Amino acid sequence: MEHEFRSLLSEVKAGSKSIDEAVRRLKHLPFENLGFARIDHHRSIRQGFPEVIFGRGKTVRQVTAIVKSMLANHHNILVTHSDGRMFQQIKKIAREARFHKDSKTIVIWRDKTIYGKGKILVVSAGTADIPVAEEALVTAEVMGNEVESLYDVGVAGIHRLLSERDQLLKARVIVVVAGMEGALPSVVGGLVSVPVIAVPTSIGYGASLQGVTALLGMLNSCSSNVTVVNIDNGFGAGYVASLINRL
Amino acid sequence: MEHEFRSLLSEVKAGSKSIDEAVRRLKHLPFENLGFARIDHHRSIRQGFPEVIFGRGKTVRQVTAIVKSMLANHHNILVTHSDGRMFQQIKKIAREARFHKDSKTIVIWRDKTIYGKGKILVVSAGTADIPVAEEALVTAEVMGNEVESLYDVGVAGIHRLLSERDQLLKARVIVVVAGMEGALPSVVGGLVSVPVIAVPTSIGYGASLQGVTALLGMLNSCSSNVTVVNIDNGFGAGYVASLINRL
Amino acid sequence: MEHEFRSLLSEVKAGSKSIDEAVRRLKHLPFENLGFARIDHHRSIRQGFPEVIFGRGKTVRQVTAIVKSMLANHHNILVTHSDGRMFQQIKKIAREARFHKDSKTIVIWRDKTIYGKGKILVVSAGTADIPVAEEALVTAEVMGNEVESLYDVGVAGIHRLLSERDQLLKARVIVVVAGMEGALPSVVGGLVSVPVIAVPTSIGYGASLQGVTALLGMLNSCSSNVTVVNIDNGFGAGYVASLINRL
Amino acid sequence: MEHEFRSLLSEVKAGSKSIDEAVRRLKHLPFENLGFARIDHHRSIRQGFPEVIFGRGKTVRQVTAIVKSMLANHHNILVTHSDGRMFQQIKKIAREARFHKDSKTIVIWRDKTIYGKGKILVVSAGTADIPVAEEALVTAEVMGNEVESLYDVGVAGIHRLLSERDQLLKARVIVVVAGMEGALPSVVGGLVSVPVIAVPTSIGYGASLQGVTALLGMLNSCSSNVTVVNIDNGFGAGYVASLINRL
Amino acid sequence: MEHEFRSLLSEVKAGSKSIDEAVRRLKHLPFENLGFARIDHHRSIRQGFPEVIFGRGKTVRQVTAIVKSMLANHHNILVTHSDGRMFQQIKKIAREARFHKDSKTIVIWRDKTIYGKGKILVVSAGTADIPVAEEALVTAEVMGNEVESLYDVGVAGIHRLLSERDQLLKARVIVVVAGMEGALPSVVGGLVSVPVIAVPTSIGYGASLQGVTALLGMLNSCSSNVTVVNIDNGFGAGYVASLINRL
Amino acid sequence: MEHEFRSLLSEVKAGSKSIDEAVRRLKHLPFENLGFARIDHHRSIRQGFPEVIFGRGKTVRQVTAIVKSMLANHHNILVTHSDGRMFQQIKKIAREARFHKDSKTIVIWRDKTIYGKGKILVVSAGTADIPVAEEALVTAEVMGNEVESLYDVGVAGIHRLLSERDQLLKARVIVVVAGMEGALPSVVGGLVSVPVIAVPTSIGYGASLQGVTALLGMLNSCSSNVTVVNIDNGFGAGYVASLINRL
Amino acid sequence: MEHEFRSLLSEVKAGSKSIDEAVRRLKHLPFENLGFARIDHHRSIRQGFPEVIFGRGKTVRQVTAIVKSMLANHHNILVTHSDGRMFQQIKKIAREARFHKDSKTIVIWRDKTIYGKGKILVVSAGTADIPVAEEALVTAEVMGNEVESLYDVGVAGIHRLLSERDQLLKARVIVVVAGMEGALPSVVGGLVSVPVIAVPTSIGYGASLQGVTALLGMLNSCSSNVTVVNIDNGFGAGYVASLINRL
Amino acid sequence: MEHEFRSLLSEVKAGSKSIDEAVRRLKHLPFENLGFARIDHHRSIRQGFPEVIFGRGKTVRQVTAIVKSMLANHHNILVTHSDGRMFQQIKKIAREARFHKDSKTIVIWRDKTIYGKGKILVVSAGTADIPVAEEALVTAEVMGNEVESLYDVGVAGIHRLLSERDQLLKARVIVVVAGMEGALPSVVGGLVSVPVIAVPTSIGYGASLQGVTALLGMLNSCSSNVTVVNIDNGFGAGYVASLINRL
Repeated sequence: MEHEFRSLLSEVKAGSKSIDEAVRRLKHLPFENLGFARIDHHRSIRQGFPEVIFGRGKTVRQVTAIVKSMLANHHNILVTHSDGRMFQQIKKIAREARFHKDSKTIVIWRDKTIYGKGKILVVSAGTADIPVAEEALVTAEVMGNEVESLYDVGVAGIHRLLSERDQLLKARVIVVVAGMEGALPSVVGGLVSVPVIAVPTSIGYGASLQGVTALLGMLNSCSSNVTVVNIDNGFGAGYVASLINRL
Repeated sequence: MEHEFRSLLSEVKAGSKSIDEAVRRLKHLPFENLGFARIDHHRSIRQGFPEVIFGRGKTVRQVTAIVKSMLANHHNILVTHSDGRMFQQIKKIAREARFHKDSKTIVIWRDKTIYGKGKILVVSAGTADIPVAEEALVTAEVMGNEVESLYDVGVAGIHRLLSERDQLLKARVIVVVAGMEGALPSVVGGLVSVPVIAVPTSIGYGASLQGVTALLGMLNSCSSNVTVVNIDNGFGAGYVASLINRL
Repeated sequence: MEHEFRSLLSEVKAGSKSIDEAVRRLKHLPFENLGFARIDHHRSIRQGFPEVIFGRGKTVRQVTAIVKSMLANHHNILVTHSDGRMFQQIKKIAREARFHKDSKTIVIWRDKTIYGKGKILVVSAGTADIPVAEEALVTAEVMGNEVESLYDVGVAGIHRLLSERDQLLKARVIVVVAGMEGALPSVVGGLVSVPVIAVPTSIGYGASLQGVTALLGMLNSCSSNVTVVNIDNGFGAGYVASLINRL
Repeated sequence: MEHEFRSLLSEVKAGSKSIDEAVRRLKHLPFENLGFARIDHHRSIRQGFPEVIFGRGKTVRQVTAIVKSMLANHHNILVTHSDGRMFQQIKKIAREARFHKDSKTIVIWRDKTIYGKGKILVVSAGTADIPVAEEALVTAEVMGNEVESLYDVGVAGIHRLLSERDQLLKARVIVVVAGMEGALPSVVGGLVSVPVIAVPTSIGYGASLQGVTALLGMLNSCSSNVTVVNIDNGFGAGYVASLINRL
Repeated sequence: MEHEFRSLLSEVKAGSKSIDEAVRRLKHLPFENLGFARIDHHRSIRQGFPEVIFGRGKTVRQVTAIVKSMLANHHNILVTHSDGRMFQQIKKIAREARFHKDSKTIVIWRDKTIYGKGKILVVSAGTADIPVAEEALVTAEVMGNEVESLYDVGVAGIHRLLSERDQLLKARVIVVVAGMEGALPSVVGGLVSVPVIAVPTSIGYGASLQGVTALLGMLNSCSSNVTVVNIDNGFGAGYVASLINRL
Repeated sequence: MEHEFRSLLSEVKAGSKSIDEAVRRLKHLPFENLGFARIDHHRSIRQGFPEVIFGRGKTVRQVTAIVKSMLANHHNILVTHSDGRMFQQIKKIAREARFHKDSKTIVIWRDKTIYGKGKILVVSAGTADIPVAEEALVTAEVMGNEVESLYDVGVAGIHRLLSERDQLLKARVIVVVAGMEGALPSVVGGLVSVPVIAVPTSIGYGASLQGVTALLGMLNSCSSNVTVVNIDNGFGAGYVASLINRL
Repeated sequence: MEHEFRSLLSEVKAGSKSIDEAVRRLKHLPFENLGFARIDHHRSIRQGFPEVIFGRGKTVRQVTAIVKSMLANHHNILVTHSDGRMFQQIKKIAREARFHKDSKTIVIWRDKTIYGKGKILVVSAGTADIPVAEEALVTAEVMGNEVESLYDVGVAGIHRLLSERDQLLKARVIVVVAGMEGALPSVVGGLVSVPVIAVPTSIGYGASLQGVTALLGMLNSCSSNVTVVNIDNGFGAGYVASLINRL
Repeated sequence: MEHEFRSLLSEVKAGSKSIDEAVRRLKHLPFENLGFARIDHHRSIRQGFPEVIFGRGKTVRQVTAIVKSMLANHHNILVTHSDGRMFQQIKKIAREARFHKDSKTIVIWRDKTIYGKGKILVVSAGTADIPVAEEALVTAEVMGNEVESLYDVGVAGIHRLLSERDQLLKARVIVVVAGMEGALPSVVGGLVSVPVIAVPTSIGYGASLQGVTALLGMLNSCSSNVTVVNIDNGFGAGYVASLINRL
């Protein structure tokens, strides 16, 4: 950008470009040339930010093509909401691709540097919440964090959680995944003083309203250190946790 | 009822009433005379059931008149959703009336027998939930139970609850009152093996949706021993807890 | 627990374990060993509490493995939300397993003791509500209760219910299962003075909103002895009814 | 209308109006002249239909002015959602005006003919539902019907309703008014074989959702003879009941 | 019933039954024997009421068995929410059975008497609403009414409706079926002065919310002669229309 | 219409038709003949309005038959919500038919005149919103407009949108299609001073509530030049944009 | 903007500013100086766009201050959601201010030029909808349009609307305001072929859900020329109608 | 804790305490003595955590008493949801108390140390959102952070936001407050790569549903770095931002 400005001004100074021409040029510079492109390429330029593809609603062919084009640079590549068929094709162009069945994510590792300053802990209430929890975990890992998990510690058996309080206290950021009544983030939030990112899941039936009950519960958490992301959005929670852990 | 049948049959037998007349009589006996009135007067006849008046939406004059008519029998009298003005008038006709400001209940004690077999414990999450908790407590007391309360033990500071686990373990029935995310019944439910009656409150703001969030959370409790009553329905919880405690 | 404490203390006293070692041991005892384990193993230790597996969302292999590990003790085993394929595999490891097709439950009977003090009655409004009613019934049975059922007595033909009032009056706890407008618990609640546990079902269409209408109706019951569980949660109702019936 | 056509055609035939003029006339006849005005004045022309003013949101001055203009004809006049101040002004221009405080209706009787062929019965669940029930009752009365009421027969004390089944069986149309769980129309509907018009009320709290719960319950009635009007719409129910009763 | 009373009384009078025995008998007479059975068999006894089976959720075998048992009497038989497979089996036991594919109803005609006093008109907004409209039509027909239909006259082309106003004016009861915004009942209601029964349908997408939008619209109709039934409940509308038309 | 009036009047004038006959004729003219038919045929008579068939819920046979009957006139024909099978049949009767796979529309071009005065721009937030955007685009095209599209310019990368502001500023009407939080119309609306038609899509998951979130967001737009259509209603947006562009 | 560029470039050319300084200057120019300010001042610069103040939530003092600062230019000034007290203060600084009591708007006329090319018609269903309709009308007027209104033509008396169809057909854009079931826009939309902007109002009670029912109804309109704005947003509708009418 | 174990074990070893006594002691140690009390006092012990009182629902007397007891230690004290009367009393016991009228917060400064490592920026969409934004700001300040604000930069005038991008890029954590459609967090989130905490406000009307629309929008943000707190929960956002900024 600066370079474009500089050469334009040089031309004006040198008289090789009239002021009128230069004014017109400045007025029509494509916007990305005025500073925002910087933001755009920002992420891919910064170390440790993966390229991410949301697989659902895209064809295998589309996803494969996008992955191919991404192989040119050297960031990690993460495909969320993928499946086995997608993985078969991607493996053909990237042997090192790994499929995480639980979380339905595909990861192509290119950069194993640790960028996060502490540990990210992913906690889940029930076994049925594990796929969403794993999506958060894989995301945090791919973004260069040390991660740990603590599963099946729902509030109906509170001692299971309490007996692992050491693990809770060691984390720098905690992601808590829960369906049904979504009470776990409040309890975890009360036990620690680090940020807790709550992920409601659509696990449950009847009055769980496909996760809306858990979502509402988490938004009303009586623990002040809890913030919330969309239902089943493990990726988002892992992403924000990673941003926080780099600070 | 039996008496009516018997005298009718006697008249038929004696010939003082024709079969036609008797058939007509049997067909037109008001229903309550056929067994259901029994159910109706059932409660007031059984020892220890109070007379209850829901005060809201009734005038002071109406409530006072109802109380007056009830003074004839010897049950306890409970007015819920009352206020100070109502109390002033009722005190005039029943000196022994007591006003519970927190729970907005008026109680006229006539019978202090204990009918419940164990202790009923009322637990509340926040201080703002206390009025509803007190309504449950007073109701249980008026129905002849030993009661105890455990307030301000919300899940964000789980140790406050855990340090009182002895009190939890001694109760025969537990009422748990909570607003906001309504998570407390699940935690309490997981610590005991007696029935837990959950009362959502309208405490909270924004996404608490006037108690709907707490209600939904409680209905989705991962503890199997939890049942739920309407938002702010402390009376109902105290009533059911009393029924259970008499069994 | 006590045993562990005792032997540890004995070793310290005897000098075979240093105080430092004992402190470390006490600090690292898994939490359930410090008092809450009591609660944890509580249920399986108490007579008549079954082992319960929620089958939905688990693979046949997973459920079978869990059942296998449970066969070591002698409690009844209940699998809810199961199916025929699941049953085929379980029968291979537990010949005595029985499949209740209506309620989609598998039961392995080990202990036929009656722990409940009275009779639990399960009432349902329509024939379509029977699967949920049966889940409540089987649960109560497996937990050691005498059970009875009264089906197809919806409020549109009130005399069907009334003609069975004797059966209603004999029950110690009543579970009422209804979809559509969910009115039956109010009517039943008005006829008896024992606790009524209402189970809304997702039966209906259009404005029944998958059971939300029945749920809301039950929460607003004008009968004070009604509490409510989640939509289609027959298991929960049977479980709470059993807890109450043991008191 | 026919008259207009006829005179126009006569003029054309007689040559006193050109075909062009007649075409233009036919094309521009105000619509109400083509048959629909007939419908418009229809109601006020038919005997026994009252003039109705919905008072809420109108000033006393506006309502009084409307009433004044209506006094010219001889139908009954009904003001719903009125109040005492409104009544004071209306009494000044119509001495015979009567104020029904319960239902907040003002009635000016001009025609006491009975147009309905049978009796309309208005049934209500609780005492708090009476204002809405009275609005239905007054409306039916003003429209020339014999009316009866049966109040405080909610489903929690079903025998109260059953003991009055004779009254139910004598009605030609029944209006049932209920708040909270809104179960009464289903029970009444099951006891009779005439049309039942259900009116949900906003009576209740918490999960009654200002009458939405009662409304949903009634729409899901398991009695096939129930139709529903808006929450608190006593007028509408009385109006439809009157239309049916004239058939 | 009367017969039972009479013989019992005769025995008492004759001394062949003691008063004690008779009292016990009267107290234990199953409820339906005390007057309500009358209501129960009421419908099937009254001429022109069909036997109705709601087919959804029942197996072909179950429906066929019910139909078989119904063939003993001579009422019309109506199966709603049926399908072709069901029809194949029913035809085997009742040759005269007819399948109405549009409305998914099976009819077995036994009694073609006209019981309704006037004509029932079924109006529908769009072609997609026709299945529900046909369910109403078939129901009304089976209950002994002259019926007519007027389809595809939605409010976006109001002249289509207006040009058929003669047909509207000839009906004694009108059923109006509409999805999407559900506006048609208001317009029809404004054109006639007979009762209009509105049936919302689940036709539409997005903000139609599976028929809830049409339902809410109809409940807020500015035409006072409109009452509403559940979403897609053509049967209910046809049933109530028939009841009204017999008055 | 005028023609019918004229010939009728001529016959009357000429004496070949009696006044009585003419009156009867006028009274019974189907309504559309009295002025509203004009509106009916209006659209198809006006140049550039296509014939439109909503394909969903219609059989291939039905759609084909309708298309066939439409081929008689010379308007463009548009089938929305179609599919490949439908297209195969239509191509048989109209070789020039084209299938737009993305938007699931079939177009038969008969008239390529441009009726719109300016350019219609269709903007979409994400790639998943493209099918709805394309439906709007094709609709606008078929109605005779110059159209342009600007896809994948969601608000999370605002510079992508800003760099295309010239394209935005050149449009006479803008359609903006977005799912998830539905924020794009507000941003676009703030950058231009022409009408913006917002189309929420059902793209998203969890708290997107099948497009309700995007819909609500758009209705609350802080840009005053935004109006909204139903969720996924690309056709409606394209239609209104076309109407505006002809003004 | 151009001026700033030009002077900067002149300085560079003249050597009075170094290229480095100029580059820094260009990079730090506040954004509005790079093209977007143009958009910002766009509206106030274009003739006939009023200055608008949303009065609700602002103090009288704040609104008066804003008005004062606006008096410097010569656009019309519109204050919506105002009241009498606000008006008293504004009149002190702008004698020509006028208060529209119905719509709660204050207008200060400075420019009476007509910018719209045709007529804007505002139609309302009931008298209670008039305040919102008037807000739309005043807005359109202040933005330089010829406006007309057609009030109290709700769908329950469809002939009232039809008899005014000439007025409908003369409008270039139509705003339709309706509460309750919100059906009027569909009917109006079917009678014209110009854009219809629908405004739901919060008029109604019970199931009108504060205007949500009308809103949903309008979004599902079966007339393709209808778009929708927020509940009670008369201003928005008048604003968009004005934008369209200038095209 | 360790200390308690150690002395107990020493006593056992020394024989001054029997094993039985020690077992009993271990079993009855109050829970807080087992590690959880540590967590409890945790916050107040850590430097820079203020004491917080939620003022709403508490009496002036209660709040003053709590403040008084807090003055003993040396943390900052923050009262949210307070008012002028509350402030008058608190000033009497703490002269240094300051009332922030906009945010309705009272602050008593005791410790002005900066604990946060970077700057926290609070951004708001409209002027009406400022009270909530100020609550976040004051909270962050009291917790020892450098804070900045950027108000009135809603998405309808995107250049206002863009022109301040430098300020955005300098922040370590950003809180974004917005009502209506709640779109601002997505746009801000796309411009930065730090965590964004979104606070929906109840600002708006009609379809804003008291902030639910903004809440849903934010949960569906297409920017991955956005997490959400409850409607109007400025305190919560400021609190979490502070936690993050200390990491």
